[in-house]
Amino acid sequence: MATQGKVITCKAAVAYEANKPLVIEDVEVAPPQAGEVRVQILFTALCHTDAYTWSGKDPEGLFPCILGHEAAGIVESVGEGVTEVKPGDHVIPCYQAECRECKFCKSGKTNLCGKIRGATGVGVMMNDRKSRFSVRGTPIYHFMGTSTFSQYTVVHDVSVAKIDPQAPLEKVCLLGCGVPTGLGAVWNTAKVESGSNVAIFGLGTVGLAVAEGAKAAGASRIIAKNFGVTEFVNPKDHEKPIQQVLVDMTDGGVDYSFECIGNVSIMRAALECCHKGWGTSVIVGVAASGQEISTRPFQLVTGRVWKGTAFGGFKSRTQVPQLVDKYMNKEIKIDEYITHNLTLDEINKAFDLLHGGDCLRCVLTL
Amino acid sequence: MATQGKVITCKAAVAYEANKPLVIEDVEVAPPQAGEVRVQILFTALCHTDAYTWSGKDPEGLFPCILGHEAAGIVESVGEGVTEVKPGDHVIPCYQAECRECKFCKSGKTNLCGKIRGATGVGVMMNDRKSRFSVRGTPIYHFMGTSTFSQYTVVHDVSVAKIDPQAPLEKVCLLGCGVPTGLGAVWNTAKVESGSNVAIFGLGTVGLAVAEGAKAAGASRIIAKNFGVTEFVNPKDHEKPIQQVLVDMTDGGVDYSFECIGNVSIMRAALECCHKGWGTSVIVGVAASGQEISTRPFQLVTGRVWKGTAFGGFKSRTQVPQLVDKYMNKEIKIDEYITHNLTLDEINKAFDLLHGGDCLRCVLTL
Repeated sequence: MATQGKVITCKAAVAYEANKPLVIEDVEVAPPQAGEVRVQILFTALCHTDAYTWSGKDPEGLFPCILGHEAAGIVESVGEGVTEVKPGDHVIPCYQAECRECKFCKSGKTNLCGKIRGATGVGVMMNDRKSRFSVRGTPIYHFMGTSTFSQYTVVHDVSVAKIDPQAPLEKVCLLGCGVPTGLGAVWNTAKVESGSNVAIFGLGTVGLAVAEGAKAAGASRIIAKNFGVTEFVNPKDHEKPIQQVLVDMTDGGVDYSFECIGNVSIMRAALECCHKGWGTSVIVGVAASGQEISTRPFQLVTGRVWKGTAFGGFKSRTQVPQLVDKYMNKEIKIDEYITHNLTLDEINKAFDLLHGGDCLRCVLTL
Repeated sequence: MATQGKVITCKAAVAYEANKPLVIEDVEVAPPQAGEVRVQILFTALCHTDAYTWSGKDPEGLFPCILGHEAAGIVESVGEGVTEVKPGDHVIPCYQAECRECKFCKSGKTNLCGKIRGATGVGVMMNDRKSRFSVRGTPIYHFMGTSTFSQYTVVHDVSVAKIDPQAPLEKVCLLGCGVPTGLGAVWNTAKVESGSNVAIFGLGTVGLAVAEGAKAAGASRIIAKNFGVTEFVNPKDHEKPIQQVLVDMTDGGVDYSFECIGNVSIMRAALECCHKGWGTSVIVGVAASGQEISTRPFQLVTGRVWKGTAFGGFKSRTQVPQLVDKYMNKEIKIDEYITHNLTLDEINKAFDLLHGGDCLRCVLTL
């Protein structure tokens, strides 16, 4: 490789300040160090978490940074000791790492991984606790350990899933976040059984993926707001609180509910529309910092369960490739979520679209 | 039977008003109607739920009533259609019914039963929606479908567990509430595995039964306030919030926590001392009406689970007899929880003891 071991200068969208348009810059991307992988990002989607940090509401957000975490690309080069991927491999960067060695990975109870969080949480790489990105000598922070709004990025080897090289990268990039989050919330976190009643709050990409997952799991009723679900409820059509409407519709409440918005009031409604004795509510949406959920403890004492999910409980390096295979076998949908295609230099327009009503996912070509 | 089909006049402790001493009265107990069982109560313990309703803080509390729900006795007579118990059977009244026919009982997911709640919740019997108790012609409400502070009571047939006639009723009366609640919270609701770390908040009868249950389940660390547990923590010894103290003590948090007090702030601490990724917190205590629990949704999104339990998830008619057998086989303890023995006419003294520091359970002879 002509670029291996050298700094690569490429285009990236830099967020210099909260809520200010991203700037397309010539960014210098340092070579991968030990345990790192440099990836040429070919396609990236935008997700609400990017928008949230960009908005400045995320107290852990650091600027300047390169956002982006739902993408696909090709390994350009690898650092010392990296054995599981090699240049030319097709990969999906994973904001949820999987080291297979830490207490979390070994527990068998969670997909969270503790190995690199101390670095990715503060926008740097583990090896030297520095960034691999810079613009005219100024370091630019990493974001979620992925920073996919750049033609080249550097990620930890535990944060990259090697996938089927036949898979269309412009589609499977969505398997970096939203679609697995929704499917996994149903399959891994709630474990919805055939015949269950399901309520979904919020039908963006994640909520629609929940609906798809519930359908695949054999749910008999899927109650939400629009397409792809068996029943539609508009809270504005009812005077009663939405939880009561749902309890009445389902003879006591739903078996499973999913909050895919990030609104703490809706999280409460999602719990309280669950059936006494067994109803389980899963928080999928990310609430704004500092906000709290609440309910009467009687809701739990009488058998409801309140849980949450991150990346749908999928073990990233192990299971993202399996999801790619499912897509290739037409067992899961991806194409339907892609409503817009733009290029990296149109990224500010893409953020505008994301906030509009008719965009699910906008995929950028880099 | 000389009394069968007739009104029985006997002694009972009547709560005429919230927070006023109970009055020992000659109470008339009507014969059991269809689906009902009249039980001679020989021993009853006092539980904090009795004290809570008696205090007037329970918005669903009705006066005048006969409290009491943790007891044992002998069937005196049965109403029409009652087949599972007969006069002379030793029984434990069960405030949590088990009809084996309703949606709840058939679900396989909960021990709650829906059949008679509409009547027991408002202090009457299903058959005619009236009370079987009266004093000088004035009806006295039932309580929790049990009303065991009376020498005779009438319960629904779905609310009475037939037990081994060899079992000492003065001990096994405790299997009507507190001890099963604690054991079952561990065994049925949390499903604590061998090697787990467990934190218990509140060490009354229920909390101690949680500790016993956790020990039986093979928990490696049981952290709480005093005897029978492996480690002791006094929140007053620490400046940090108790959840942080526990997280630090356990390298990231406990696997399971149990709130056995009924304090909503402690419920939050119990959740937040759980380990990221898998920690499960079970609410066992009953909070005062109107109070709410709260936390940041991030606690759940990062893998903690919040649930609750009622009667420890035990199916009452089926499993209370099994718990009696476990006691007879010395597999579970009961005697150790009985710190005081008094008679029915000393019941007000017994309530005073319950609020004092060194009473776990006071058993009254009727």
